[in-house]
Amino acid sequence: MTDKTLNILFASYLEPEYVEQIRNEFPQLNLIYRPDLVGQPRYKADHSAKPQRSEAEDAEWKSLLQQADILFDFDYFNLDALPELAPNVKWIQSSSAGIGQLVKRTRYSERTSWVLTTSSGIHARPLAEFAIMAMIMFAKNYLYLQQEKQNHNWQRYASTKLAGKTVAIVGLGKIGREVAKLAKAFDMNVIGNRRDPQKSVTNVDHLYGPDELNSLLKNANFLVLATPHTPETEGLIGAAQIAQLPQGAVIINIARGAVMHQNALIENLQSGHLQGAALDVFEVEPLPADNPLWDMPNVIISPHSASTADTENKKLTDLFCENLRRYLNNDPMLNVLNTDLLY
Amino acid sequence: MTDKTLNILFASYLEPEYVEQIRNEFPQLNLIYRPDLVGQPRYKADHSAKPQRSEAEDAEWKSLLQQADILFDFDYFNLDALPELAPNVKWIQSSSAGIGQLVKRTRYSERTSWVLTTSSGIHARPLAEFAIMAMIMFAKNYLYLQQEKQNHNWQRYASTKLAGKTVAIVGLGKIGREVAKLAKAFDMNVIGNRRDPQKSVTNVDHLYGPDELNSLLKNANFLVLATPHTPETEGLIGAAQIAQLPQGAVIINIARGAVMHQNALIENLQSGHLQGAALDVFEVEPLPADNPLWDMPNVIISPHSASTADTENKKLTDLFCENLRRYLNNDPMLNVLNTDLLY
Repeated sequence: MTDKTLNILFASYLEPEYVEQIRNEFPQLNLIYRPDLVGQPRYKADHSAKPQRSEAEDAEWKSLLQQADILFDFDYFNLDALPELAPNVKWIQSSSAGIGQLVKRTRYSERTSWVLTTSSGIHARPLAEFAIMAMIMFAKNYLYLQQEKQNHNWQRYASTKLAGKTVAIVGLGKIGREVAKLAKAFDMNVIGNRRDPQKSVTNVDHLYGPDELNSLLKNANFLVLATPHTPETEGLIGAAQIAQLPQGAVIINIARGAVMHQNALIENLQSGHLQGAALDVFEVEPLPADNPLWDMPNVIISPHSASTADTENKKLTDLFCENLRRYLNNDPMLNVLNTDLLY
Repeated sequence: MTDKTLNILFASYLEPEYVEQIRNEFPQLNLIYRPDLVGQPRYKADHSAKPQRSEAEDAEWKSLLQQADILFDFDYFNLDALPELAPNVKWIQSSSAGIGQLVKRTRYSERTSWVLTTSSGIHARPLAEFAIMAMIMFAKNYLYLQQEKQNHNWQRYASTKLAGKTVAIVGLGKIGREVAKLAKAFDMNVIGNRRDPQKSVTNVDHLYGPDELNSLLKNANFLVLATPHTPETEGLIGAAQIAQLPQGAVIINIARGAVMHQNALIENLQSGHLQGAALDVFEVEPLPADNPLWDMPNVIISPHSASTADTENKKLTDLFCENLRRYLNNDPMLNVLNTDLLY
C-alpha cells in the first residue's frame, strides 16, 4: 500500500499531545490537524461541539474533507453530505460506540467502500460505574439522605445492599459485560439475555434466550439496558415489559432512549411500581425543559455523559493507532461496524 | 457445663423468626424474649431505640436482667449500672462492632469475668458499599447532575472514573478490607497502613507503617477512615493531616466521629482543598441542626446508618448461634473484644 500520501483529517477536537502521539508513531502519514476549524470542546472529550466557522473557514474545511483519506471521527455536522464532501475517504474511526443510527444518515449503502470503526469498549467502564453508582444509591435510599439533609434532620434508618440482589442486563456487549463484572464483585446475582443462551458469558449467572425477556424481567431488582439501538431493540421495553418487573424495581438506561417507551417509564415511576430510574439517554435529547422526568425525585438524570471520562481521548488515540497499524498492514481492524446489525 | 438453666435475655429488639431459629437450635436453654419491654424498632435492625416502660414494666425488666446469664445485645440504656443490674451475666453479644468506648461506661474492669463479643464483620459490606457509592458519586460529579436537574438544564460534561485512582484506607480491619476488595474490583490503586507493614493484606497494593501516615495521605485521591475509636486513633486526622492530602481529595468517614477533627474538615471543604466528604459518623450525634455540614453541598450525610442493612439481624442471629455453640463447648468464641486495644 502506498501510504506515503495518506491524509488523516481530525474531524472533532483532540488534544495536541494525542495528535503528537499519532505523528510520532506514523511519521510517514500526513496529519491534517486544524483544531481551529472544529467545534471547540466544552468539556474534556467533547466530540459533539458545533463548529463556528466563517464562510472562508467553512470553504477551507470542505477542501480538507476533499483531501481526507481517513477521518478521525465523523464530521457530525455534515453527515448527510459526507459522501460528496469527502469522496476519498476509505475509513472513519468514530469517537462513539453506538453509531448505527447516525451512519444511516450518511447513506452508507452508497459508500460500501467505507470501513467504519466504532469506539466500542472505551466507554464501557465509565458507563458501568454509572450503573453501579445508581444501583447503590437506590439500595441505600440516597433520596432519603438528600431529603433529610435538606431538613437538617437526623433519623437513623435501614437500607439494603447489592449483595444477593438480582441485576438483569439487556445487551451483553462490552458495556453489559462490564456491568456484569462489577456487579459480580458486589456478589449480585447477574442475569441477562442473548441470541444463543447456551453460550455462557463470564460473570453472568443465568442467560435467557431472545424469547424469554419476560422471564428475565420477572427476576430483576435492577434492570440495566445496555443494548445498541437496532430495529430489534427499538421500543423493546414498554408498558407490558415494565409490568413484568417486580414491585420496587429500578431501571437504568445506558443504551439509547429509543430502546424504552419513556412515557411508560414515567407512569410506572409515578404509580410507585418502580422505585426509581437512572437515565443517561432519552427519547429526545437534550431532554426538553418541560419533561416531567426533571422534577421526579426518584430519577437520576445524566445528560448523555455517563460514558464521558477524562481518560477517553487517551484511550481513543490508542485505539486509533492500533487500527491505523492494522489498516496499513491490511490486518483485520478492531470494532468494525456491522452495517446489517448496526453495531 | 450445666447449661440446662442458662437464661438468655434479649436486650434489644430481634424479630420472632430469629428468636425461633435460636430456640430450635438450643431447645435446652431458656430464652427470655420480651419484645414488649425493649425499645420498639423504628426501622429494620434498630438496636438503639429507647424503651418506653411503665414503672411496673421497668421493675419487671430489672428482674429479668437479674436472671440473665447471657445477654443478646447490651442494655444500652442501663450501661452505667449494668454490673449491678445483671450480676449473673457471663457473656454479652453486642449488635455493634465498635463497642470499645461504650464498654468503658459499664466499668468493665470491675467485671473481668464478662466475655464481650462484638458483631465485627456484619456491617463491613454495607459500609464498604457506602464508601464505593460516595467515591463514584464524587468521581462522576453527582453534585453537578443534581444541580442541573434542579435547573432542568442539559449540558453535557466530562467526569472521571475510579479506575486508576488511589484510595487510602486507614484501618484495615474487616471494614477496611472489604472496602479494599470492592475498590480493587474497580481497578483502583489501594493503599493503607498497619502496625506491621511487612505483612501483606489482600487487595492492598502498598502498605505504610504507623509512622508513615503523611506518605499515605499524600497519595490519596480518596481517604477512607475505617479504624476503631481507640486512644491512638482519637483525633488522628486533623488540619495537618488533611493538608497532606492532594488538592481535590475526598474524605469518607465510616469509622467514628472522634477520629477526625470536624472543624478542620469543614474548613478544608470550604476552602476548596477538599472536593467533598461523605460522613456516616460525627463528633456529636445526632449532628446538631445548626452544624454547617448540613448546608454544604459537597457533603454526603448519613445518620450513622450506613452499616444498617435489612439483612443485619439474620447475620447477627447466625453469629450469635455460632458463638453460643462455642460458648457451650468451651471453644474459642468469635469477635471477642480485646479490652486493652478496645476492638
